[in-house]
Amino acid sequence: MTKNNWGRWGDDDERGALNLLTPEVVKAAASSITTGKVYSLGIPIQSHGVPLMDYRGTPMRLTLQDSTDDGIYEMYGCHTGTGAHEDVLVMASHTTSHMDALVHVYGEYKHYNGVGHDAMHALGGAQKLGIDKVGGFAARAVLLDMVSFFDEGEWVTLGRNITGNDLASAAEKQGVEVRAGDVVLVRTGYLQFWWDNLAKGGQQPFEQAGIGADAAHWLADTDVVAVGCDNAAVEVIPFDDNDFLNIHKILLVNAGIYLLEFINLLEPAQDQAYEGIITVAPLKVTGATGSPINPIFIA
Amino acid sequence: MTKNNWGRWGDDDERGALNLLTPEVVKAAASSITTGKVYSLGIPIQSHGVPLMDYRGTPMRLTLQDSTDDGIYEMYGCHTGTGAHEDVLVMASHTTSHMDALVHVYGEYKHYNGVGHDAMHALGGAQKLGIDKVGGFAARAVLLDMVSFFDEGEWVTLGRNITGNDLASAAEKQGVEVRAGDVVLVRTGYLQFWWDNLAKGGQQPFEQAGIGADAAHWLADTDVVAVGCDNAAVEVIPFDDNDFLNIHKILLVNAGIYLLEFINLLEPAQDQAYEGIITVAPLKVTGATGSPINPIFIA
Amino acid sequence: MTKNNWGRWGDDDERGALNLLTPEVVKAAASSITTGKVYSLGIPIQSHGVPLMDYRGTPMRLTLQDSTDDGIYEMYGCHTGTGAHEDVLVMASHTTSHMDALVHVYGEYKHYNGVGHDAMHALGGAQKLGIDKVGGFAARAVLLDMVSFFDEGEWVTLGRNITGNDLASAAEKQGVEVRAGDVVLVRTGYLQFWWDNLAKGGQQPFEQAGIGADAAHWLADTDVVAVGCDNAAVEVIPFDDNDFLNIHKILLVNAGIYLLEFINLLEPAQDQAYEGIITVAPLKVTGATGSPINPIFIA
Amino acid sequence: MTKNNWGRWGDDDERGALNLLTPEVVKAAASSITTGKVYSLGIPIQSHGVPLMDYRGTPMRLTLQDSTDDGIYEMYGCHTGTGAHEDVLVMASHTTSHMDALVHVYGEYKHYNGVGHDAMHALGGAQKLGIDKVGGFAARAVLLDMVSFFDEGEWVTLGRNITGNDLASAAEKQGVEVRAGDVVLVRTGYLQFWWDNLAKGGQQPFEQAGIGADAAHWLADTDVVAVGCDNAAVEVIPFDDNDFLNIHKILLVNAGIYLLEFINLLEPAQDQAYEGIITVAPLKVTGATGSPINPIFIA
Repeated sequence: MTKNNWGRWGDDDERGALNLLTPEVVKAAASSITTGKVYSLGIPIQSHGVPLMDYRGTPMRLTLQDSTDDGIYEMYGCHTGTGAHEDVLVMASHTTSHMDALVHVYGEYKHYNGVGHDAMHALGGAQKLGIDKVGGFAARAVLLDMVSFFDEGEWVTLGRNITGNDLASAAEKQGVEVRAGDVVLVRTGYLQFWWDNLAKGGQQPFEQAGIGADAAHWLADTDVVAVGCDNAAVEVIPFDDNDFLNIHKILLVNAGIYLLEFINLLEPAQDQAYEGIITVAPLKVTGATGSPINPIFIA
Repeated sequence: MTKNNWGRWGDDDERGALNLLTPEVVKAAASSITTGKVYSLGIPIQSHGVPLMDYRGTPMRLTLQDSTDDGIYEMYGCHTGTGAHEDVLVMASHTTSHMDALVHVYGEYKHYNGVGHDAMHALGGAQKLGIDKVGGFAARAVLLDMVSFFDEGEWVTLGRNITGNDLASAAEKQGVEVRAGDVVLVRTGYLQFWWDNLAKGGQQPFEQAGIGADAAHWLADTDVVAVGCDNAAVEVIPFDDNDFLNIHKILLVNAGIYLLEFINLLEPAQDQAYEGIITVAPLKVTGATGSPINPIFIA
Repeated sequence: MTKNNWGRWGDDDERGALNLLTPEVVKAAASSITTGKVYSLGIPIQSHGVPLMDYRGTPMRLTLQDSTDDGIYEMYGCHTGTGAHEDVLVMASHTTSHMDALVHVYGEYKHYNGVGHDAMHALGGAQKLGIDKVGGFAARAVLLDMVSFFDEGEWVTLGRNITGNDLASAAEKQGVEVRAGDVVLVRTGYLQFWWDNLAKGGQQPFEQAGIGADAAHWLADTDVVAVGCDNAAVEVIPFDDNDFLNIHKILLVNAGIYLLEFINLLEPAQDQAYEGIITVAPLKVTGATGSPINPIFIA
Repeated sequence: MTKNNWGRWGDDDERGALNLLTPEVVKAAASSITTGKVYSLGIPIQSHGVPLMDYRGTPMRLTLQDSTDDGIYEMYGCHTGTGAHEDVLVMASHTTSHMDALVHVYGEYKHYNGVGHDAMHALGGAQKLGIDKVGGFAARAVLLDMVSFFDEGEWVTLGRNITGNDLASAAEKQGVEVRAGDVVLVRTGYLQFWWDNLAKGGQQPFEQAGIGADAAHWLADTDVVAVGCDNAAVEVIPFDDNDFLNIHKILLVNAGIYLLEFINLLEPAQDQAYEGIITVAPLKVTGATGSPINPIFIA
């Protein structure tokens, strides 16, 4: 029932569905570029005004060097008035817009490809399936604007379980096809809700619209490479079947399909830019469980 | 003499040469894709074995959550054996492969477009020209393999000042054209030298091959968008004319042309993949002076 | 009018009122020990449940090494079952219970002893008056329990401006004398209010009881070494005379008297332990503006 | 043979030998103060010039707020020229001078009092025996200057295994008595070696003088509370009996006796200040495995 890709690309494989992205597939994807308009899909990384999880701490940009250090390069022949500003970043690897490594989630104590959950070491980092195994990728991307599809307002009702049929119908309505090797971008409008709610001073709710198990199976059967969404976890919350991280287990663990979270899809949706090429470039942090990202979508 | 782009895109402009990247230019760039092979140009972010500057501190990946926390999600209906690994990153924004924001360097107390060097605040961050103004971009990229051009071994001699004529001749030899709106990737082999030297236990020298003022003027006159290099600062060290950050001032400050540093160009050079499209996606850290990056080059 | 200690201990002095603590003074202070009961006056450093300032970010304890790293010391002859746990701390130097260095606050662009406010460099740290100049100290300590004195409930009314006469009267009532060379601990009950309010889910108010200019002058005239308080800034908020950091300027800047903030005084107050010796041991971070502390009070 | 204090202070005890420090013991310790001279025993926390372990990363003091932020408090009625400097600290809890919590080391998968090594959680921190259980303490302190005792130069020969008889003989020679409830400070001169070696540009060796199993048993039998030393780990390296963390297991794990490392004992040794009171005030970081400290010794 559940698509399982363990062993499909070898018993030692650590890249999962990214194996689908052969040069031929990428070259074909390039033909999806029609306007050349570039969208930067990351949301800001800052200490306030963006959705953050308390336990991940405050993302901080701390100044390393500024104009108060003027003169420190004089010994290197630095002219008066010349200098540099620098900073240091402290942030969770799953801060705001981010990509999960295959080592992020496990079910029945196993990650993708049967790797044990003890592959993650505190000091040593991920011994397998870390974000460094991704490198970076380019693929055809299809944006499914579920806000427009359901037409319930500026965002999909919180808690709605989006099904495979919903996705297929939205694709059909938009006139785009979802293919093997694609990155599917599912817009729920959650970020727009979140900012609207913030402006109103509301408590941020636990619920979010997202895909359920049915949609996850549909995506896995289609052989997509990654699923990006504008919510916190791609999946509907409360979790489908009340199974914590249900969709992470279907996609990330069983199918080796990557998840991209808190991806802002408003601008391409407004342009009805439903097809193009996407590049995703996680920081190559050795042994990390994920990385903040800023995907580039070229329509 | 020196190309100066202050005011060219408006007195309030904060994006510099990125203004050249209209959708038409990007769409045209897509036609440079010939093989579909994808190169991830970032080098690893880790505490050892990569070039780091002492004053920037050790990049750290610290585990936020691992299997020792098993059971914390039970209250949310989490099945036994299901869990997640996470980490926190601490690193300079100019760690390993990175992009300088326009607010990074100033000369005569001015940044690009005449912005005063006091635009950088310790707590407040960059008030103007921060990395968040970049968003992310896609452009045609041309790789100039100066290692192959000079043919002096596995890297260009440390300290060699690469000229505009050198770049033009290399392009001609490779059969590629450098155009307005391009990202020019200059390979000096410095990273290969660095790793070779590390393996031999050598002291890492101060010198590096890089472009000098002549090449910087040539690039600025050509109206390129960014210059990427496999060394620490794009520019030759010792600095051309003994002027500290000379090339940063010609390109970043005067021309609004971005610099990408510690970009690994070995793999595309080995493939003689000299032309393609590049996407650069800095983290959208509000007010930051730069960002680690992992550029994606599609040949 | 305002006590000014600039120059009193030399034009190059960087320790201020700590100069009062000669060995003779400390030896005499030891005779204030009567019961031998030890109080640790710091409050916990953790991400929740303690008063934190948003702009200082979340204090984080991040695990560096845990049991998932088992086996890494085998090469050093480590027996099976032997290992170590470690962590990394990220926190503001003014997190929870802390001590201000003399370089912390400036007025009219000057710190204590006329040091310019440009003595603080972003990369270089404090060129003068940093916390590293303190070393650590021991002194006689007198606790003035203003909660008991005002007898208004479990805490002094928020926003109350405690005067010099209030302090003198409380000392008299308690039967203790405040002397030159003392650390004066002023209990307002603010922490008890804060925790009570947290438990009730209340918004934490801006106001706090604390000392005003009158009390600050009284303390400076008495030649105390430091003032510790259980609130955020020692001083009453709203600031006395609506002058931001008014009391910091009277004590820290003009008199070189140190401030200890968020110091928990409940336990000694409950024991009516009003006199003893205190040791204050800031971390010796070179160039820092302050340090978290955990003062030890021996009654 | 090996002193074992598990259960001695109750099966749920988390403070170990600190239980010996009753108010009576502390009051008696106060009588050891003879000169009133105060010594701050911590070494600087900075990125260079002090012994650091690579895997713990660079300790960083990062500026949070400086004069470039001038004007941000105007909205609160701040006068022109008034402002504050602040910073953020990033450092391992075992950086330079530090104290180990009882949760730091385990043997046969057990910590002090039989607590399992799984008591340490990555996100949750120490569930038991964390540094927060210490609070802070005061005790009589005896300094044993082994450099003077062995009289081999400015430091004890690297790798020398200091025995119980050595400690007892040194105490006798110095005319001091080591008692139950004491903190014993063992000076090996290692820090002086380290700085001397740094100045000479030498590679820092693995070896250090320190106490061996014999001395550890002698200290445990004497019922001391803590052992402080000027080396990296209190214990001799190479480890006695080639047993990794041998002395940590005898003292910390079996006897619940605390270890204080990289404690600078030069100044009191020069003064022949062999007896006094010491206060140790770890930061009260909830769930941490240790803390940087700056012990205060009053002779």
